[in-house]
Order: sequence, then structure tokens, then C-alpha cells
Amino acid sequence: MNAKVFRFAHRTRLLAPSMILELMKLMGQPGLVSLGGGLPSADGFPSEAVREASHRVLTQHPREALQYTTTEGLLALREWVAARLSQRGLAVQASQVLITSGSQQGLDLVAKMLLENGTQVAVEAPTYLGALQAFAPYEADAIEAACDDAGPLPERLAELAGARALYLLPNFQNPTGRCIPHARRVQIAAQARSMGLPLLEDDPYGDLWFDQPPAAPVAAHWPEGTIYLGSFSKVLAPGLRLGYAVSPLPVHDLLVQAKQAADMHSSTLAQYIVLDLLRTGMLDGHLDDVRIRYRIGRDAMAQALHTHMRDLATWQIPDGGMFFWMTLPPQIDSASLLPLAIKHGVSYLPGAAFFARNPMRNAVRLSFATESPARIAQGVAALAKLVRHTLTAQSGQAQ
Amino acid sequence: MNAKVFRFAHRTRLLAPSMILELMKLMGQPGLVSLGGGLPSADGFPSEAVREASHRVLTQHPREALQYTTTEGLLALREWVAARLSQRGLAVQASQVLITSGSQQGLDLVAKMLLENGTQVAVEAPTYLGALQAFAPYEADAIEAACDDAGPLPERLAELAGARALYLLPNFQNPTGRCIPHARRVQIAAQARSMGLPLLEDDPYGDLWFDQPPAAPVAAHWPEGTIYLGSFSKVLAPGLRLGYAVSPLPVHDLLVQAKQAADMHSSTLAQYIVLDLLRTGMLDGHLDDVRIRYRIGRDAMAQALHTHMRDLATWQIPDGGMFFWMTLPPQIDSASLLPLAIKHGVSYLPGAAFFARNPMRNAVRLSFATESPARIAQGVAALAKLVRHTLTAQSGQAQ
Repeated sequence: MNAKVFRFAHRTRLLAPSMILELMKLMGQPGLVSLGGGLPSADGFPSEAVREASHRVLTQHPREALQYTTTEGLLALREWVAARLSQRGLAVQASQVLITSGSQQGLDLVAKMLLENGTQVAVEAPTYLGALQAFAPYEADAIEAACDDAGPLPERLAELAGARALYLLPNFQNPTGRCIPHARRVQIAAQARSMGLPLLEDDPYGDLWFDQPPAAPVAAHWPEGTIYLGSFSKVLAPGLRLGYAVSPLPVHDLLVQAKQAADMHSSTLAQYIVLDLLRTGMLDGHLDDVRIRYRIGRDAMAQALHTHMRDLATWQIPDGGMFFWMTLPPQIDSASLLPLAIKHGVSYLPGAAFFARNPMRNAVRLSFATESPARIAQGVAALAKLVRHTLTAQSGQAQ
Repeated sequence: MNAKVFRFAHRTRLLAPSMILELMKLMGQPGLVSLGGGLPSADGFPSEAVREASHRVLTQHPREALQYTTTEGLLALREWVAARLSQRGLAVQASQVLITSGSQQGLDLVAKMLLENGTQVAVEAPTYLGALQAFAPYEADAIEAACDDAGPLPERLAELAGARALYLLPNFQNPTGRCIPHARRVQIAAQARSMGLPLLEDDPYGDLWFDQPPAAPVAAHWPEGTIYLGSFSKVLAPGLRLGYAVSPLPVHDLLVQAKQAADMHSSTLAQYIVLDLLRTGMLDGHLDDVRIRYRIGRDAMAQALHTHMRDLATWQIPDGGMFFWMTLPPQIDSASLLPLAIKHGVSYLPGAAFFARNPMRNAVRLSFATESPARIAQGVAALAKLVRHTLTAQSGQAQ
């Protein structure tokens, strides 16, 4: 009946029910070892500092913190972002910074500005599935850049000519965990510049390095052709829903207009709280704690994979971020296996979800950010047992 | 240079720089009597209650309040919305409620689902300019419903046949302040149902009544054909950026997918704070205070208009909300006059901004929510003097 009343735009056909949304329903099972989600560890949230910041803000500036604010976001917060990025090698003015509701909103707004039916957008293979979701309703064709373990291959970027942008996650990529080395960044920027292929650089994980900070952003090598997205979700807390988009001025002006039409501005209260937190100078010490915590998780997962999986799968050990990307034997379809895995007490994300065009069906993404080392070991052991069992059963059937 | 690198989607041509954004820059002048903005009075924010709620939330549920949450929003908050709307005559389940970042985001998401190039969307004349901004990037043609002082004329809705939706602000409309009476709501719903014309009902001001609550929502008369948008901005505080979209299930499912792609979910912390606040039972008492405050503003403006404008302009006295709509003599162009008005210490919004197609150039929107009664009187007096002076000067030129 409703279907007859409402006529939907063509783009709604491209809004596939999110695999993540569907999986999250399955993943509510108590006791499940959740290697699937990308949730930061709540143990690492600076809860007390947020409580104190919130109290200060609502005592000192309640009228401002509860009122509408400018679409761009608080100037002092934008200045902080500009200064921070400049320290990391990306020279930026506050006037280029737009505060967004997480970097997910940055993806949506950029897509809204650049993409439409009949255009192409290039992505890594695999890439962040939330980006694929953000791009889909704008009806562009997603095409895949050829990649190796160090990221997109500069010599093959020419295949992407004409795309409205190349979407990159250079630091500890979701899902692969890979980090693009400095030299590759320089090559990608040079090649993209020579082609006139804009870059969309998404960097939620850059601060989550374990041994040494990643190289300067790709944007540093082609600032006038790159839109850079950052987030407070992984360095402070995702529930605040704050991120930022940094772009050359003509793009910035359009993004601000699009942001105003989309939701006026991001939560003023959340912006005041984050600004207050940052001004206490707590961030670097807090990040040291987060890095130690995630590094322990990374080591626990590396150990568990080595113990249980070394004859079954291949993986790289990431130098930061939250994820391992694991390739299982080709006869394993990780999406089909998932319901069984959940029944056996462990979840992961099937690798196929992370491809725009040509999915790998035998890969999985494993997160080491959410669970304790002991539970990571337990989950990996359960998964290994299940994979081993499945291979045996399949080989039995084949005979 | 950048213009050559970035190629923008066609929709960006429809993102006119917002008149409001431009005006806000002018309106920063100190001492200016701001009758232009639509800011709720910060004196009326429940700052202390928010501070206490924030403290409780960050003491009792810090891990949950700072973490990602479901796209739909907190279930308990959605249940509260459903119960509240049911009291107001709109029977709703929590499963139909999506928490949004203000009702502006509801407008964006609904437009994303329903509108595209080659379609039409119908609006009142005049209508909320933020809705026109939200609709524009989806490239539909906005057409205008014929209206009188009681809202759209049911017998002329047939002219809107084929539009993807009719956008309505039935309660204390922004900009006119008009409230659609019960009988007219029933007629509009019946006519729209018979035509298969979906309704988009936006209700940020419904709780801001002065004498008696407005009639039940239009959606109550055609629930399966109406999407209803509400907001916590005017009843609690706009800086929280929280609102809700209530829709029939097939639409709801699409809106949830669109919301996930757009920004994952709205601020978890803001949702927990609002839920905690609502559970204290403070809302109704708080709303009584807000109504008294705004009623005093309304009365001050009615008095000032009567004193200074009665031979110059016409207006209706609104029974709620935040705005007067005033028609000046036809030879006054309110947009051209504005810079001069700001120089003379008073701002307003030119009426032309609120029309999709056929602007009235001699109307203005005046807000009584932001300024004190004394300053409202001062601002109206300054405006009257300026209008009188302009008419005299024009008549001098004409001779």
C-alpha cells in the first residue's frame, strides 16, 4: 500500500541494506567474541576527562554550547585542527576546515559535491565499506584501483582517468591494515596531479600508530587537488560524532553549503566538549595509552593467528590501526561461513563487503580493538577450528 | 586552478550561497536588534538541567554514551518520541522513529529518498527556507501550493498532482506564524490521500503554543501517507542537534539506510543527555516557562507593531512559535532595504527568501524569540522609521 503512495528516487535502489547492519543483529548474541565490529575499546575512552570537560563547558559557556553555531563549526576547534595537521606536514588554514559529524559525513558531503549518474569514482580494492555506502546514492560507478601491499600502484592510476576522485585510506587502512609508504605517497600524488585526478584522503586511523607515526598525508604532496578527512572518533570517542573535512577553498565553500542543507552544523555541545578536552593538553598522553592498548591487541592477535592459523591462512601484521586482513584457502566463502562462526561464538567481517566490483570471497577482516587479548585468542582459536573443520568436510564431499 | 582539477556534480549549481549565511555575516554588528534570526532565546535553555543530566550520563553510562550506537538511535528515546506523539493524537510505534541531527537532517534524508531530477516537490508559499535549501541539491522542481491564512487550499491541491510530496509546516509556520486549523488538516489529508500525494509534515514549533495546543498532526489523518519530522531544538536546545523522523515502515527502512550512509548515527552523548533529561520529567514544566517567555515576546512585538506600523503594514498575530510575517507597502523591496536597516540597528529576514517560485518582495519575517521586549520595541520603532522615510523619499523621487 505504501509502495503505491510513495514513489522513490532511483538512488534508493542503490541503497543495499548494509551488510554491517544485518550482521550487527546477528552479533547481539551474548558471549560472542566480536572480531567483526570496528568499535574502539570502550575501556580506552577518556570518560572522566569528558565528564570534567562537559561540566566546565556547561558551567562556563552553557548559552553558547546549547545554541546554534556556524555551519563551519567552532573557529577555535578549526584552528586546532589546522595547527595539528600542519605539525603532521599538511599546511592548512582554519578557513579550509569544516567540522563534520564524523568522517562518514565528510564522505557523504564530498560525494554529494562530486558524484552523479554518469560519473565514476575510484576506490582501492579492497576499501572501506562505509565509503561505498556513502557513494552509492549519488549513482556514480565505483571503479577499482589496482593495489599491492603498499597501496594503489602509481603506474596503473592511468586506468582511472576521468574518475571524479580516487578515494584513499593511506594509514592502517580499513580493512587491510596497510599503510602507504612515503615514497608511494609522493608517486601517487605526482601521478594524480599529472592526470588531474582529485584525491579524497580519509584518515581516521593515522594517530593509532604503534612504532612510529606514518608519513605525512598524501595531501601534503598535492594540497590543491586533495580533500582530507579526519575524525575524533578513534582518538577520543566515536559517540561524539565529530570529524573534519579539509579542502581547497572552492571545494570548501561548496561543502559548507552542502553541510548547511544537510544538518545546519554538528552538535555545538560536542564541539565545545572536544575543544575543552583538547585545550587541557590531554590528547597526546591519551593517545599514548590508546596506542599501548591497541598494540597489545595487535600482538595478541598476531600470536593467536600464528598459533592457530599459520597453515590455513595468510596475513600481514599491521603497524597501527585496528584490523588484520586475512586470506583463507580459496575454497572458503567467508560470507557463507559467518552464521556458523557466530554459532561457534566468534564473528568477523567477510572480505567481500569491502570491494566495489570484484570481491575476494575467501578474505576476512578481524578487529583487535574491541576484545581483550584472552578473548582474541579464544576467538581466533574457534575460527581456526571452524575453518579446519569446513575444509575437511569439503574435502570429504569432494571425494 | 582548483576549478580545473575538481569537476562538480550538476547539483552544486543549485546550492546558492544561503541568504541566511550571508546575512549572518552582516548581523554580527554589536548592538544590532536581531529580529532576523530564528535563534531560540538562550535565556530559556535548561542549562543547569543539561549539566546535571550530562554529569549523570557520564558517570552512569560513559562507555555507552561515548560509543557508536545504532543508526536508528537509542531505543528508549525512540519509545519516548512514540509515546509523546501518541498523546498528541498520532499513533506511532518506536519502530517507525529515526533519531536525526535536527529536523533539518530529516528534510535532507527524505529529499534524498524521494527527489531527483525530473520530479517535483510541492511547498507552501511562503515556506521554510531551510527546506528549500535541503531540497535543492536533489534537483527536483519546487512548485507552490496555493495558500490562504489557514494554510494550503484543499480544493487547489489537485494542481500539485504528480509531485513526490507536499511539504507542510502546520504549526506556527516559519515564516508566517500561521497554524492550520483542525478542519483544514482533515481536508488536506483527505484530498492528498485521494490523489496519492504524500505529505511531509515538519513540526519544530508545535510545542510552542500560547493559549491552547494545536490540533493533532496532519499525519494523524493519513498516517500511511505522511512522514512527520520533529525536533528537540526548540523545546530543549538547538545545539544538541537532535530531531526525529517518523514514517511508514517502507520509508523508514530507506531513511535508516540513508542515515547510515550520511553520518552513521546522531551524537550518542547528546541522545543520552536528552533521554536523561526527559526521564526527569522536566519537559512540561520547562515548556511552560518557554511558552511564557515567548508569549511575552509575541505580545511585545504585537504592541510595538500596533504602535509604530499600523498605518504602514499588515500582519496576523501568531498563537505560538517564534515569528510574525509582515506585509509592507508594495513599493518597498525588503531585501534591498536590509543593509540600510542593519545600519540603523535592526535586522529582519526579507520575505522573498521563503518562496520557491514567486517571491513577495514587500514582506518580512520578524522573530520575537531572541530579543527582550524592550529591544523588540526599539527594533520595530527603528524599522518603522526607516520604512516611513523610504516611502517619503520614494514619493519625493516620483514627483
